[in-house]
Amino acid sequence: VNAEIIAVGSELLTPRRIDTNSLYLTQKLNERGIEVAGKSVVGDDRERLANEIRRARKSSGLIVMTGGLGPTLDDVSREAAADALGLELDFHQEIVDAIEARFRRRGRAMSENNRRQGYILRGAEILPNANGTAPGQWLRDDTGILVLLPGPPRELKPMFEGQCLPRLAQIASPYQYYTLSLRVTGLPESELDQRIAPIYSEEKRVATTILASPGEIQIHLRARAATLEEARKIAEFLGEKVEAELGSNVFTREDESMEQVIARLYRGRGMTLAAAESCTGGLLAERITSVPGSSEYFLGGFVTYTEAAKNAWLGVRESTLRQHGAVSKQAAEEMARAVRAKANASVGVSTTGVAGPGGGTEQTPVGTVFIGVADEKSVEVAEIHVGGERDLVRQWAVQKAFDLIRRKAL
Amino acid sequence: VNAEIIAVGSELLTPRRIDTNSLYLTQKLNERGIEVAGKSVVGDDRERLANEIRRARKSSGLIVMTGGLGPTLDDVSREAAADALGLELDFHQEIVDAIEARFRRRGRAMSENNRRQGYILRGAEILPNANGTAPGQWLRDDTGILVLLPGPPRELKPMFEGQCLPRLAQIASPYQYYTLSLRVTGLPESELDQRIAPIYSEEKRVATTILASPGEIQIHLRARAATLEEARKIAEFLGEKVEAELGSNVFTREDESMEQVIARLYRGRGMTLAAAESCTGGLLAERITSVPGSSEYFLGGFVTYTEAAKNAWLGVRESTLRQHGAVSKQAAEEMARAVRAKANASVGVSTTGVAGPGGGTEQTPVGTVFIGVADEKSVEVAEIHVGGERDLVRQWAVQKAFDLIRRKAL
Repeated sequence: VNAEIIAVGSELLTPRRIDTNSLYLTQKLNERGIEVAGKSVVGDDRERLANEIRRARKSSGLIVMTGGLGPTLDDVSREAAADALGLELDFHQEIVDAIEARFRRRGRAMSENNRRQGYILRGAEILPNANGTAPGQWLRDDTGILVLLPGPPRELKPMFEGQCLPRLAQIASPYQYYTLSLRVTGLPESELDQRIAPIYSEEKRVATTILASPGEIQIHLRARAATLEEARKIAEFLGEKVEAELGSNVFTREDESMEQVIARLYRGRGMTLAAAESCTGGLLAERITSVPGSSEYFLGGFVTYTEAAKNAWLGVRESTLRQHGAVSKQAAEEMARAVRAKANASVGVSTTGVAGPGGGTEQTPVGTVFIGVADEKSVEVAEIHVGGERDLVRQWAVQKAFDLIRRKAL
Repeated sequence: VNAEIIAVGSELLTPRRIDTNSLYLTQKLNERGIEVAGKSVVGDDRERLANEIRRARKSSGLIVMTGGLGPTLDDVSREAAADALGLELDFHQEIVDAIEARFRRRGRAMSENNRRQGYILRGAEILPNANGTAPGQWLRDDTGILVLLPGPPRELKPMFEGQCLPRLAQIASPYQYYTLSLRVTGLPESELDQRIAPIYSEEKRVATTILASPGEIQIHLRARAATLEEARKIAEFLGEKVEAELGSNVFTREDESMEQVIARLYRGRGMTLAAAESCTGGLLAERITSVPGSSEYFLGGFVTYTEAAKNAWLGVRESTLRQHGAVSKQAAEEMARAVRAKANASVGVSTTGVAGPGGGTEQTPVGTVFIGVADEKSVEVAEIHVGGERDLVRQWAVQKAFDLIRRKAL
């Protein structure tokens, strides 16, 4: 069985509101082995909504609608569903009595328009709402299942969990699902895919998705099996093969960011870190210190944005700046060494580059970044060239620096 | 003209990812008087996507698709659009040449599968992508307009703004729209709304929206009139009344961030800035240096995350740390003074606080931040208390620091 989720409400078509109920619903459905094949948002428009319900019923066996069950005239989910399925709406006095009692308990009178909430699709089961006025509706026919749920999360969630999931258990797939995520750095998406496609495409019980962001690629392996344990085994077996191919480019198999991996490694090994940033302007320190407790291993940093600061604060030699320039392998080396010594840290890291859009030369064009990493014994410098805007150059530079910092602790 | 937005990608049908591009697109379309009539999310499924495009084209004149333009086989937006419209895809060698050059600049070889990105719907205009490999596509026919955009926001936004909005400006609408944005700091949303509601609710030709984020509130005044000039006048007349009420809490009437305002002011006055950060961990420097050309006025910064660094690098006195603690008015004062002197800057700014979740005490609970601002003559310290998570504390602290820095240059 596949599901579709239709969120109803014109407010969800404005720049400031987004349907987040579908994330919750997707998680709960996925846990039962039901895939979400599509999601849509429709405004308070009866005809459009009826069309959308008709379309969805043709392609998916389970339609979950959220919102549009309120008392006002622009709440059209009931009517649109009736139009789409060619059903009558029956009035249930007992629903209105319950709504009226609810108002009375709160010392209020029910409005006349709440009577609209007493209409139920002929043949549907009523899903009582303990946390609001709008009851849900559950309709099963030869085409599939249509569920109408209220929009507010505090009404929707208990109703879905308490009344829909038990009903779904009877129709859910015989499968259980397990998702394993690998996070990778240091490879472009296309190369990564070319290397692992032969591995994952062999395993039909696993759906593989690849998600790229600057300096990081996530590989999601979702395995399907009769039991959760079996699904986990299938995912992990494939994950190991993928990891064997990609080696130490895989920086984690857990749900953790690169800075959290660094936190784990440095804490675990009692290592400390200090940073001297030029082109990244504080972004490296900012991301490192975004992890709670980072003061345990991050001793501090310098943002030496001018040559004067590089010289005065870090002791980068004037001759280096004159001969090689502030954006150079030599400057990155001296910066990394200096900050390590000044902070008395296990590892010192440095960045110097041309983030752009100005400042590029023929020899060091925009996007050139040198990244230095020093420990007690030695210093190494990586040179990268990033195509794209200032922000992207900075992000790639930090991600590369993080990878070098991480490898120092492996 | 109504628009529909189709987000493509199986990852957007998982419990952990949500389409947020549509919020940006909705805002930009609304500003041009184009309403969004529906949104949908479709997985990497060519047939389903083609059906969705066919359906959307029947009900809306403008279809904006995001994602599914990558190099891998599961990127199906090109093929699905061709299926839906019954069009051929033409191969453009020049696109692939550009992608190859992009890889070369970064010292990498292009993969064979990037060739897939060279296919363009017959009759479509190519929208070059300055920030990634996938070009966009713009197709106008008798049925309407179909736009294919890459999924990553950093690629999508500049492409939409630079290449789609100018094309959309040609589409007829009886009205012209002009949006004036005021950005405000230092006031809570509820107080702000109470003060300006009597002003904006009088002007029916203007739609007012208020958008709050940590430390900043945006007031959008969207005026509608027969001509753009008239719309602009209406918006500006109202804007002046709102600004008169809010005074210097309004930090800009342009589309510029707080750090851009600081850039403009400091550059204009030939002033310079240096930063000493503790709890903000580099975020302040990072935001300042995110502005191109910031090296003209930002001389550098320290991230003194430990007491030792505060003492050794900035000369914060041991007696201050012992008597008042690192999170104190006195420490903030010394840090701001010291960094100003060390960098020989017009203004020195400092932050020291408890970002949490750990580290709070009864006297200085989590969320306490001291912000110091020093110039040649004096130093002042502001104390703020932020309720919320680590990230929020840091953001509010930086925003408050920025406001103090800005006022130093007024």
